[in-house]
Amino acid sequence: MSGFSLVLNICDQRVWAGCLRLAVEVIFPPLSRAFVLERSYDQHSSAVLRVGPGPGSGSAAVVVRSARRNVRDGRDLQLDVMSAVKLQECRQLISSQLDGVVDFWLKHSHDEQYGGFFTCIGRDGTVYDELKYVWLQGRQVWMYCRLYRTVERFRRPEILEAAKAGGAFLRKSARLSSSASPWKCAFCLTRDGKAVKVQRSIFSECFYVMALDELSRVTADPDMQLEAEQMMEQLIHWVRVDPSGLGRPPLPGDVATNSMAVPMMLLCLVQQLTEGRGQEMAQKYRELGTWCVSQILQHVQREGTAILENVSAAGAELPGSAGRLQNPGHALEAGWFLLQFGAETGDEEIQKTAIEKFMELPMEYGWDGEHGGLFYFLDVDGHCPTQLEWSMKLWWPHCEALIALLMAYRHTRRPELLRRFLQVYDYTFSHFPDDKSGEWFGYLTRDGSVALDFMGGPFKGFFHVPRCLLMCERLLDDLLQTHNE
Amino acid sequence: MSGFSLVLNICDQRVWAGCLRLAVEVIFPPLSRAFVLERSYDQHSSAVLRVGPGPGSGSAAVVVRSARRNVRDGRDLQLDVMSAVKLQECRQLISSQLDGVVDFWLKHSHDEQYGGFFTCIGRDGTVYDELKYVWLQGRQVWMYCRLYRTVERFRRPEILEAAKAGGAFLRKSARLSSSASPWKCAFCLTRDGKAVKVQRSIFSECFYVMALDELSRVTADPDMQLEAEQMMEQLIHWVRVDPSGLGRPPLPGDVATNSMAVPMMLLCLVQQLTEGRGQEMAQKYRELGTWCVSQILQHVQREGTAILENVSAAGAELPGSAGRLQNPGHALEAGWFLLQFGAETGDEEIQKTAIEKFMELPMEYGWDGEHGGLFYFLDVDGHCPTQLEWSMKLWWPHCEALIALLMAYRHTRRPELLRRFLQVYDYTFSHFPDDKSGEWFGYLTRDGSVALDFMGGPFKGFFHVPRCLLMCERLLDDLLQTHNE
Repeated sequence: MSGFSLVLNICDQRVWAGCLRLAVEVIFPPLSRAFVLERSYDQHSSAVLRVGPGPGSGSAAVVVRSARRNVRDGRDLQLDVMSAVKLQECRQLISSQLDGVVDFWLKHSHDEQYGGFFTCIGRDGTVYDELKYVWLQGRQVWMYCRLYRTVERFRRPEILEAAKAGGAFLRKSARLSSSASPWKCAFCLTRDGKAVKVQRSIFSECFYVMALDELSRVTADPDMQLEAEQMMEQLIHWVRVDPSGLGRPPLPGDVATNSMAVPMMLLCLVQQLTEGRGQEMAQKYRELGTWCVSQILQHVQREGTAILENVSAAGAELPGSAGRLQNPGHALEAGWFLLQFGAETGDEEIQKTAIEKFMELPMEYGWDGEHGGLFYFLDVDGHCPTQLEWSMKLWWPHCEALIALLMAYRHTRRPELLRRFLQVYDYTFSHFPDDKSGEWFGYLTRDGSVALDFMGGPFKGFFHVPRCLLMCERLLDDLLQTHNE
Repeated sequence: MSGFSLVLNICDQRVWAGCLRLAVEVIFPPLSRAFVLERSYDQHSSAVLRVGPGPGSGSAAVVVRSARRNVRDGRDLQLDVMSAVKLQECRQLISSQLDGVVDFWLKHSHDEQYGGFFTCIGRDGTVYDELKYVWLQGRQVWMYCRLYRTVERFRRPEILEAAKAGGAFLRKSARLSSSASPWKCAFCLTRDGKAVKVQRSIFSECFYVMALDELSRVTADPDMQLEAEQMMEQLIHWVRVDPSGLGRPPLPGDVATNSMAVPMMLLCLVQQLTEGRGQEMAQKYRELGTWCVSQILQHVQREGTAILENVSAAGAELPGSAGRLQNPGHALEAGWFLLQFGAETGDEEIQKTAIEKFMELPMEYGWDGEHGGLFYFLDVDGHCPTQLEWSMKLWWPHCEALIALLMAYRHTRRPELLRRFLQVYDYTFSHFPDDKSGEWFGYLTRDGSVALDFMGGPFKGFFHVPRCLLMCERLLDDLLQTHNE
């Protein structure tokens, strides 16, 4: 007979403490099964579930969603017993993926001649374009340094050297020396560092700050840290005082807008600049952090039922497609920024909002019930978004969702969040990784087939995938350690 | 028995002149059938072809590709006997589609309060965004005037009034009065005409010229014509003398590029401004027209095997993805611009190049052999384009292909071009028209399902579809008249 079985084995003594029977629900998409487990004489119990037909699969997600003491005292004691086997399996896959992704970029992306990184790279490692996008230069420097600084197995000279060469390339070439705003950075450079394009936004400069601050931590270079902070001052000036240096002409119909990316990026930079640097630095950026949070929270609209990408400067809904735009992956990313900020500052209200509004809500409206995966864009009123790629499944929203949901689960131990994590995990790891290259595809059609087959491009570098894998590895280590305690 | 028959009836006396037998090939995708027709006593002959199984379809394409005199003198006399029935059927569908499309925009797009046009319109006619995109304002004014001026059944007061109101809105609001370049236009306006965004390119201004010139023809307004010509002078200055007024800062890595859209647009405007306006006007823009053609021809690269979207100012291939980019629909549009120019100036070499390089070539490399339809973007070396929408099927490349191939067929009577036209026709009319609204879907996935279901959007207005339908209606009238002569 075809089909396969799952053995559920609850041997954690704490689960059984004081009771003989547990009501358990196993979620095994698309099935779920509720049943009662009787404690056996050795204080644990197993159940065999037949979940066929089909040959079974290693990526099956098994979660015991809730177990209730239901004999002795009748109280509903919520327990989040998870399958340690499953999370261990996640941990293993995530770590090996991280190794593969790091190897890919170490092997194919370094420009030994000019420093910095090629990011337009095909599946076979071919560099199909030598342009250097400043966002991606800064992000790769940051990511290399973060890996080097925080993970033992990545404390390797070649990673540090590449990060330093990338930092030197950025400092030499990213800023537009001829510009009226001497801190304005290019968006994209030739291989040898000549400016090709400049955006009228702040993001190249944000990743410049991220790169230099993180690099200053591994090189212990105070000048570099100072430059990061100076650039940060310029960013704050552009965002909060006067945007004219960005080069956008003032136009009568162009009303001041709060685009979620801006306070998100600044909040991320506040966390970057202050992390582990003591009270003085924390104090310096405290007001800015709080301001960023309030700006992000303005995006909770429609009586708390929607996160909108663009709102007015006063926090009101804007008219038209731009005002109705939703970007579920972006909301989820904001969610873990907020959760982290709330945890650091001990603000439980922010943590609650982060999870309920910026994670659970976008997972509801952003998930494609038909084909799985997160939509890239949606219109809150159900109109068709005007972005041609609205229904595509991109790698980065899934990366950010994995981080957000696992972080939320670690904070709350609410089984629903683990179930959501595993839902995204299953979709992500069955669709994005490319066995051939070791890196991930970035762009899938709505139905999950590969739409663009390169590993790196103008907007896909060494950032969202390794940051996700690194953070999830950490979070799973925490969870598994707790479980084993 | 299922299946159906086609009756091929060659009754044109000229075809039979001097011979008793014709070798004929009928192309009926996916079948083709070669056979010999014997002349009957009444100097024509019929053949019945069984082309089943299946119930048959009104959109079947039947072409007699070649008929050779093969009895008396043995000469190969190429004849392009086409199925008048099929082309008559095309003519009918195209005319009724044009009526439906005009009705849709007349009914849903007019802003009675401020003038100008809503273009973000859903299938049910709902305006889902009130922003007014200047490209589309100008194009709709032009299209209304062209219909009013050249087609008897569209010489309707409501069309003229809407065009005038659109022209007044453009003249009042499109130009950025506060700009350092007083001719620079916004890209997009609020409903009441306040500038929201400005592009650092020339296209808003180009459609401003197109609109005003065509409107001046129906209103006989010399001031308006003068303003169109003044704006044209500014455009020429930006393109050929000094682009600094467009607002792009000069950057050391930003080398001067010949992007095909620029000479194409200017050539289109030369034809617009000079059409029927006599020798003096023709003379005024002659050198510019010739220059535009030479600039367009620079895009024929790789020993004549590829049309590339971007080349250097000196006409050399550029490095990277931008240099390898192909846009088959754009090449086809350039093709009919060139063919028209070559026909007007009597330059046969240009006509030949237009058809071989800008039509037949892109139809070869741009057609999706798996799912049908024209790709949006391709990389000449087979790398994956970096545009997320590269494999999508957009309405406008198919519109431009229909115009190009039918125009080329009318000029040459080469059956291969009619076959190509019918190939695009079949795909287009079985995928894009929306029976519910009367307008067309604009954006399909690679496999031909609807990806964005609105009828109008920020880049889809009242232009490519009606221009295609109008021009094809005209071309088919010419062909059918010739056939009936």
